[in-house]
Amino acid sequence: MAKNKKEESFVEQLTKRDENFAQWYTDVVRLTDLADYAPVRGCMVVKPYGTAIWELIRDELDRRFKATGHQNVMMPLLIPESLLMKEAEHVEGFAPEVAWVTQGGKEVLPEKLAIRPTSEVLFGYMYAKWLQSWRDLPFLYNQWCSVLRWEKTTRPFLRTSEFWWQEGHTLHETGEESAEETQRMLEIYREVAEDCLAMPVLTGRKSEQEKFAGAVATYSIEAMMQDGKALQAGTSHDFGTNFAEVYDIKFLSREGSLTHAHGTSWGVSTRLIGGVIMTHGDDRGLKLPPTIAPIQVVVLPIAQHKPGVIEGAKAVADALVKAGLRVKFDDRDSVSAGYKFNDWELKGVPLRLEIGPRDLENGQLVAVRRDTFEKQTLDITDAAEKVSALLSTIQKDMYESAKAMRDRRITNAANLDEITAAIQGGFARGMWCGADECEDAIKEKTGAYTLNMPFDQTPVGDVCVCCGKPAAKVMHFGKKY
Amino acid sequence: MAKNKKEESFVEQLTKRDENFAQWYTDVVRLTDLADYAPVRGCMVVKPYGTAIWELIRDELDRRFKATGHQNVMMPLLIPESLLMKEAEHVEGFAPEVAWVTQGGKEVLPEKLAIRPTSEVLFGYMYAKWLQSWRDLPFLYNQWCSVLRWEKTTRPFLRTSEFWWQEGHTLHETGEESAEETQRMLEIYREVAEDCLAMPVLTGRKSEQEKFAGAVATYSIEAMMQDGKALQAGTSHDFGTNFAEVYDIKFLSREGSLTHAHGTSWGVSTRLIGGVIMTHGDDRGLKLPPTIAPIQVVVLPIAQHKPGVIEGAKAVADALVKAGLRVKFDDRDSVSAGYKFNDWELKGVPLRLEIGPRDLENGQLVAVRRDTFEKQTLDITDAAEKVSALLSTIQKDMYESAKAMRDRRITNAANLDEITAAIQGGFARGMWCGADECEDAIKEKTGAYTLNMPFDQTPVGDVCVCCGKPAAKVMHFGKKY
Repeated sequence: MAKNKKEESFVEQLTKRDENFAQWYTDVVRLTDLADYAPVRGCMVVKPYGTAIWELIRDELDRRFKATGHQNVMMPLLIPESLLMKEAEHVEGFAPEVAWVTQGGKEVLPEKLAIRPTSEVLFGYMYAKWLQSWRDLPFLYNQWCSVLRWEKTTRPFLRTSEFWWQEGHTLHETGEESAEETQRMLEIYREVAEDCLAMPVLTGRKSEQEKFAGAVATYSIEAMMQDGKALQAGTSHDFGTNFAEVYDIKFLSREGSLTHAHGTSWGVSTRLIGGVIMTHGDDRGLKLPPTIAPIQVVVLPIAQHKPGVIEGAKAVADALVKAGLRVKFDDRDSVSAGYKFNDWELKGVPLRLEIGPRDLENGQLVAVRRDTFEKQTLDITDAAEKVSALLSTIQKDMYESAKAMRDRRITNAANLDEITAAIQGGFARGMWCGADECEDAIKEKTGAYTLNMPFDQTPVGDVCVCCGKPAAKVMHFGKKY
Repeated sequence: MAKNKKEESFVEQLTKRDENFAQWYTDVVRLTDLADYAPVRGCMVVKPYGTAIWELIRDELDRRFKATGHQNVMMPLLIPESLLMKEAEHVEGFAPEVAWVTQGGKEVLPEKLAIRPTSEVLFGYMYAKWLQSWRDLPFLYNQWCSVLRWEKTTRPFLRTSEFWWQEGHTLHETGEESAEETQRMLEIYREVAEDCLAMPVLTGRKSEQEKFAGAVATYSIEAMMQDGKALQAGTSHDFGTNFAEVYDIKFLSREGSLTHAHGTSWGVSTRLIGGVIMTHGDDRGLKLPPTIAPIQVVVLPIAQHKPGVIEGAKAVADALVKAGLRVKFDDRDSVSAGYKFNDWELKGVPLRLEIGPRDLENGQLVAVRRDTFEKQTLDITDAAEKVSALLSTIQKDMYESAKAMRDRRITNAANLDEITAAIQGGFARGMWCGADECEDAIKEKTGAYTLNMPFDQTPVGDVCVCCGKPAAKVMHFGKKY
């Protein structure tokens, strides 16, 4: 009885998505042990399961960064106030969010030190020191760290005062090269989001108002969550020579003159985990794409007290481990099989293998997909091969399914009413004249933010959705996180 | 001419070890691009080469942590003052070194926040929240992060205000288990230090005065640098129930009573890189053990303008990469071969392969070891296999050579004069009565610190080196970093 009660409790504890999506999200984070609240307001603790997901995402990104010639560095946490304040636009963007160190030991510091909200100025300072000749370029550096921005309202992974991320900072000889780099990294973000997180994204350029403080151009990947809101999941900035001018980053050019270098920066964060939760999760909990699932397959011996069952199931689990899969063998005898089903569904494990006495007799097992709940019988002899193939299928299907959902919910809009209607459960695609005033008015009247301008600028109209004047820019609009 | 000048300049710029070991160390760090000084006093930037070494060390450790059941988490950077101040001994140990955040955005904070100097109290706070039953135990968590301790005098890797490390924090049901865990992690540190860094270490227990603030017992690995001074390269602490009592970490025991959990913590840091430099380096620069060398083999085409040389050498390099080795192919034509020799020797690359026109004709190459400068001719056909074997030999020989040097310099000492003599260029092993007063007097009169007490406590005398009274403890003494 107690067991049944506990089994039900998973479902009871998890709010339904259509009742309260925000509460569902928080429930999932808590019930699956992804993260917890820290004793400092707005900060989180990422628990082992969440950290394992982050490490898998990190490895996918890091491999691609290195394959494109980037190297990791470790920059300091603290930035002197005077250095941070050099770039006016940057200061304006970040000053309200900075945590300040004013005391070291018992000594009051002569100058306040900021905890990095991002590290453009540190890289800028060091780059100015390191760069001498065009032969030194490009500088292609990245770091993995946490940063801090003093936030008023916070939600685990989506917005917290401290979060973990990578920040790439590069320097180039020419503007063409920095523009190329900006696109190269955006493309890596798109690839990891779509191929690894199974999360379809719209790539494009941010508006002038929404771009990064100090950038010439900001590009983003925007994902649609199941509630139709946009999650900005990564950004790539082209600085031109903006930071180089402020931080005096110059080099002796091929022609022998002192020239400012062209810079970029780009980052994705633990926010991606929030994106995975809200792209794929359902009323039973988390649904993880196999590529970033800490446990890809859970193997459950059924009627495990019967002779040979645990051994037989364990042999299958071992074969999967040997094939390089991430496997959990769950032979707990303190909970029922039903409890385990619910438990691993909640945790979002992509594939469950059930192996009972009759299965072993028949040399078979039952595989149950987390994404579709589809059951199929597999031969034990080539289980590792079949399971690997099935995981690839799940990965692909999860992407296709999320993409179909997303595509259905992007609607062309010709005016503010149509924007309002479109963004109730998705994005609007519409023409925009490019004026700040219209961007502000759209936000005020419909609640829609400009997300990004797709690279495919095939017009969907000829006048601005807001002012009705001739408009040449195709823009994605939506509510946002 | 310009080229020759530049070649010489490597040697000119690098101070000789026996002239000024400290300056030699700083020169190596700077000339090999391991690290640079940050704009904040006492903080460093770890450059790509240093970061790559750290990532290799991290991976070796992380693999072993996970193989012994540990999981990574990500804890917040900031600790509320009231929480930090709960454990009196801990506070006393760390308060003078804490950097305080007093301001968030424009708001003065109601409570100061410490940047973590270490995270016992954060883990303690969360553990108290998470732990309920003996069934939950053990908690085996670790995190990779940077910590901050406000230091007066700093040196890259050896002592900086901010440094990178891992900190493991565990909880156990019984004191036997926490004691076992403390030893298990110490053993992992010994193994990584000796097998991966080729750095022999003495394992043992710290004195009461030298132990970690709040621990019941602290164990360390101590390495001897080439100047004979000790580098404490890793520590493992058994807390018993000390932290559990302060942070109220209790569980329902098997017997049904509320019981304090037993804890441990253990850490190694970027200081290990300093240890590698000072264990192996020579007057030509860094000498990296192959296991943690970002570049294990540099392949140099000789007389590379001659037809087929670059192609032939590149084919060898490609074969090595395919065999899983970390390889640099250096076909720069802006510098001479001699310059490249010096450059890669300075950088400490374990093996150099020279491939010229005649070598290609003979189907051979010349391999030059960084550790011994020994040259040998290898067949190109099975180069990958031979090079892999040679790297294993280098790894082993570097350890043996460092160990022989270290062992020669550990001397038994019966009194203060002998301690003084022994620690001029190494360690002393002597009997100690265990009294704080003697420990202090030894330090004052000879400059020797207690390092650790080896597990093998076979007596080397029967009276204390200081007071002359009966003594049962065998202690390692030395000057230290």
